[in-house]
Amino acid sequence: MRGVNIRNLEEFSRLIRYYILISSTEAGSGHPTSSLSATDLMCALLFGHSSSDERVSSAAGGFFRYDLDNPDYPNNDRLIFSKGHASPLFYSLWAAAGKVSPEELLTFRKFGSPLEGHPTPAFPFTEAATGSLGQGLSIGVGMALNAKYVDKLPYRTYVLLGDSEMAEGSVWEAMQIAAHYGLDNLIGILDVNRLGQRGETMYGHDVAAYEKRISSFGWKTYVIDGHSFLEILDAYEKAVGEESNAPRMIIAKTIKGKGVSFIENQDGWHGKVLSKEELQKALGELGAIDKGVRGEIKKPPPEILPPIRANEGIDFETVGTVSSAADKLFDYAKGKPVATRKAYGNALVRIFPKYPNMVVLDAEVSNSTFSETFKKAYPDRFFEMYIAEQNMVGAALGFSRRGKIPFVSTFAAFFTRAFDQIRMSQYSNANPSTALGAGIKFCGSHAGVSIGEDGASQMGLEDLAMFRTILGSAVLYPSDAVSAEKLVEGAVAYKGIVYIRTTRKDTPILYELTEAFPIGGSKVLHQSPNDAATVVAAGITLHEALAAYEELKKEGIMVRVIDLYSVKPIDVETLQKAARETRTIITVEDHFAEGGIGEAVTSALAGSRIVVHSLAVRKMPKSGKPEELLDYEEISREAIVQRLKNIRKDEFVRVG
Amino acid sequence: MRGVNIRNLEEFSRLIRYYILISSTEAGSGHPTSSLSATDLMCALLFGHSSSDERVSSAAGGFFRYDLDNPDYPNNDRLIFSKGHASPLFYSLWAAAGKVSPEELLTFRKFGSPLEGHPTPAFPFTEAATGSLGQGLSIGVGMALNAKYVDKLPYRTYVLLGDSEMAEGSVWEAMQIAAHYGLDNLIGILDVNRLGQRGETMYGHDVAAYEKRISSFGWKTYVIDGHSFLEILDAYEKAVGEESNAPRMIIAKTIKGKGVSFIENQDGWHGKVLSKEELQKALGELGAIDKGVRGEIKKPPPEILPPIRANEGIDFETVGTVSSAADKLFDYAKGKPVATRKAYGNALVRIFPKYPNMVVLDAEVSNSTFSETFKKAYPDRFFEMYIAEQNMVGAALGFSRRGKIPFVSTFAAFFTRAFDQIRMSQYSNANPSTALGAGIKFCGSHAGVSIGEDGASQMGLEDLAMFRTILGSAVLYPSDAVSAEKLVEGAVAYKGIVYIRTTRKDTPILYELTEAFPIGGSKVLHQSPNDAATVVAAGITLHEALAAYEELKKEGIMVRVIDLYSVKPIDVETLQKAARETRTIITVEDHFAEGGIGEAVTSALAGSRIVVHSLAVRKMPKSGKPEELLDYEEISREAIVQRLKNIRKDEFVRVG
Repeated sequence: MRGVNIRNLEEFSRLIRYYILISSTEAGSGHPTSSLSATDLMCALLFGHSSSDERVSSAAGGFFRYDLDNPDYPNNDRLIFSKGHASPLFYSLWAAAGKVSPEELLTFRKFGSPLEGHPTPAFPFTEAATGSLGQGLSIGVGMALNAKYVDKLPYRTYVLLGDSEMAEGSVWEAMQIAAHYGLDNLIGILDVNRLGQRGETMYGHDVAAYEKRISSFGWKTYVIDGHSFLEILDAYEKAVGEESNAPRMIIAKTIKGKGVSFIENQDGWHGKVLSKEELQKALGELGAIDKGVRGEIKKPPPEILPPIRANEGIDFETVGTVSSAADKLFDYAKGKPVATRKAYGNALVRIFPKYPNMVVLDAEVSNSTFSETFKKAYPDRFFEMYIAEQNMVGAALGFSRRGKIPFVSTFAAFFTRAFDQIRMSQYSNANPSTALGAGIKFCGSHAGVSIGEDGASQMGLEDLAMFRTILGSAVLYPSDAVSAEKLVEGAVAYKGIVYIRTTRKDTPILYELTEAFPIGGSKVLHQSPNDAATVVAAGITLHEALAAYEELKKEGIMVRVIDLYSVKPIDVETLQKAARETRTIITVEDHFAEGGIGEAVTSALAGSRIVVHSLAVRKMPKSGKPEELLDYEEISREAIVQRLKNIRKDEFVRVG
Repeated sequence: MRGVNIRNLEEFSRLIRYYILISSTEAGSGHPTSSLSATDLMCALLFGHSSSDERVSSAAGGFFRYDLDNPDYPNNDRLIFSKGHASPLFYSLWAAAGKVSPEELLTFRKFGSPLEGHPTPAFPFTEAATGSLGQGLSIGVGMALNAKYVDKLPYRTYVLLGDSEMAEGSVWEAMQIAAHYGLDNLIGILDVNRLGQRGETMYGHDVAAYEKRISSFGWKTYVIDGHSFLEILDAYEKAVGEESNAPRMIIAKTIKGKGVSFIENQDGWHGKVLSKEELQKALGELGAIDKGVRGEIKKPPPEILPPIRANEGIDFETVGTVSSAADKLFDYAKGKPVATRKAYGNALVRIFPKYPNMVVLDAEVSNSTFSETFKKAYPDRFFEMYIAEQNMVGAALGFSRRGKIPFVSTFAAFFTRAFDQIRMSQYSNANPSTALGAGIKFCGSHAGVSIGEDGASQMGLEDLAMFRTILGSAVLYPSDAVSAEKLVEGAVAYKGIVYIRTTRKDTPILYELTEAFPIGGSKVLHQSPNDAATVVAAGITLHEALAAYEELKKEGIMVRVIDLYSVKPIDVETLQKAARETRTIITVEDHFAEGGIGEAVTSALAGSRIVVHSLAVRKMPKSGKPEELLDYEEISREAIVQRLKNIRKDEFVRVG
């Protein structure tokens, strides 16, 4: 009976190879050889239980279980192509399952087609956008954590990995964490086809080298011939059946270009498609193909339970309608010094009952970011991700794609470590399946030179620039604990990626609890009919601006002071009004000059013929007291006063 | 005799512990407990050979060899504190060697002191700035590669690692590459003190867990008690003596806070200093300390050869005086389509004889970035770093700090992977030891949506924003092969970090070979007395701007066209002149709207009351033909023409 099944699979895999070849040649670009090496592995995963295979469709269940008509079904198994360039295979699998027509397959890589060059959620069976290598296993970790610890669902997460991407450290971050959390529901499939883009990988076909490393990281490993259905099916059976807390990795020796003799195991065929002539030759080699047959994918068995919410008592009706002002958890007296990072932690605890889909992740600094406040209150929804920011962000994306709202925190500076994962997460259009919000919510603490003595390595000075580049992102920078609380609440409801920048130091409370902080707004803290200029600041420098205001007032000089708590989207209207009325704008930020508040404001005023003076970090930062560093970088109260006086002198000279 | 030595070391380590405690308490912040765990390991490394120790100072040589009076001496061993927060230990070691006075030690973390919170090259014995965890081993890889393959020097590179940072994937990237290149001159020392910042690490005191993983990656491992000088000295002796091609890792079980009973192995003592009272108690525990004694560090033995240059035939006199125009390697006819990425590879080959300190690194895409052109010409100076961008940048920093000029290439998008390493490299003030240049030279290919069918994951759309944030960086964006060649040459001579953005597509040659492209300049390609606006572009969009010019000209509308090949530093003067004369500026860039050309130009004109219209990537990018995507994102010739017409209509309406 096994023989029958395998013969069927062998036949069926030819159809998939056919699809790979015709779609990539039609596109004129793409990665057919990287697809062909993994074809048998994936064919067996999805269709290995096909109804003619009595053995595999027995009580043991099929391998990949998925309701084809309902990609959002919570109990579906998940399949992530970490080697996203094998997209021809990915789309061909779903074509073989009858969900993509042969005509649609020929739109591969064409403008407007959901079949993009690398998979994105424009295609409904894509779990998350991939294509930047080494990220898929982290996404899988997030989905597997969700299944095991949050939704408590029996779905399995499969991740197809390439051998080249095993050089990426993020893969090993995911390996460590997956074993640490005992993710027995996570199954990696490593396609060792020996060849990278420009030649052989570090280990070539030495599958033992991978086996040694991966098993040393606490994974169950299965080394197989990736073109023997016998071995492949055996490996899946063991991988899904084995009693162990360990995540599992099938390490398969494969041939790049398998099935087309003249490109098999050849250098120079990465990311290259067959010409029309070569295609004919290749199809001749494939032989007769039954183009009418479609594979069947097993549905998740009905006895599997629907997702269990951690907070079953919560009234979902009230979600999104929180009246923060009335919330009793607030306890911030005006003037009281409270760090915004502390308010971040408080806010997470306060809003969780209203947003039960929240999960909180931190990279081993929860006692600095104050996400530990949440951890103490809701330990089941907190995930310690250790000092591995890339995997943390990838895992957050996995959570997000399973309907959770992840809050992710570390020092602002260390999010630079995960910029590629942050960038990629925007292409996953995260969280379309929930009305509660969309996109990962990032919180970076210890922003700017004002952290003081720890020195430059710990100072987030490029975080605003980084997060501003993300499409549709909100970049928020509270100056006091009240606005921090309100902005965390704004973040959870915002449909997109959010970055919240918090400050290490205590800063005095500026606002009443009744104050609202809509994303995209700003606060005018001082204004008069005689304002000589407007000072725009946020976070730590807002307090410098307020001090400068007092100092200038003593000398009879009035300035407008704006709290730009929403750096993106930016309150163009208020800024333009201030520009019209005061004619001079000074921005002050504890961030490098490029891409931060100065440029955001300058851009917002780009049409209004107004002078913007940007005070920002422009000298090599160093250790010292916060006040010394603010002075040194010329972003302190004194620097603001001085700059304003210089501007007035210049104008006087010009007018004179 | 060993006993004598060990007793001396035990005594001497008390002096170091004394320094750690007094300097951190005086500073009021810092990481004494993380320093105390590694004290014995470092004390033995630097002073283990002390003259009373006949055994170790025998023919086998001492462990750490360093000319204290000449930190730049090429044969010095290198010591990198990857766990940079153990800076109190780092400075105390050099104090114990007599190179930092006790008074200076008390300036630790104070404004203006070279003894910063985390080590930077402000302190002459710092090899590279650390403090963002998980980066030191990569820097060590660069220094060890340099010793083994470039300078062919026998110096050894030692890297002190913390156990927390082993969660960072970049460490495992470095592990793989170090073994791959047989870096037997690289010795890691892993301080397994069990405790991270907020609690226990993933493996706690399970040193076997580290041993299993590290040895599986092809390293020689030595598991020891990190407080037994007997075991420590034995381990160093084996690590330096063993005949093997493998890099070596000493895995030491240690106690955080070792030596001060009431903080030993305690949670809650990370990054926390003793109060004055606690300090007195701790010093009481340390007992009598001979504050007058100083340790001796062995000099590199005289028979060690000075650095060997790979290009001994090169006339060093001519370095930096290249006349590119006269160079015969140029072969670019005007109008000929040549990709700028191709010119990048050509330029590397052309200039190498003049800049023999160059090394070239690539992350497994050399056939796309065209660094393979260099690899073919000078294989000994090319280092394949596989798909591990973080380690590549860290290693480049290591090379740079050993006097090399590293050129580092991958897809523009994938440099986001290494933003933390890029950011940190600016704090190492790279390459002060050579007059040839300073800082890593980065080249990102495949920038923008114009790469086409591969889709968003492969498109560099935030690279300009990222590299613009780097202090003192140059951000260059050539539009044709001639300017690309010239800008590579400009990059090598530039004293700082440089980013060169290249384009996938062939673009026609615009410039004569005689044209010069100074960094900070720009080119006015079209101008007239009647220009209705100025279009500022670079790279692929410059060609769109030129096409728009022709189209508008047909309609009798003249526009100025500026090639902004130097995005940073920016040619303020030319932009201001254009702004004054044409009153309207349109920027066009194949990059997200934030932090790129639009904001750079807007900032440059911030004082001049001029309207800047920014055309940039503002919609979710996708797969398609380059032209389709330029149109879709409204950065094509048609978009420029349309925008200009709209502006004129608006102005007409306003005037009307």
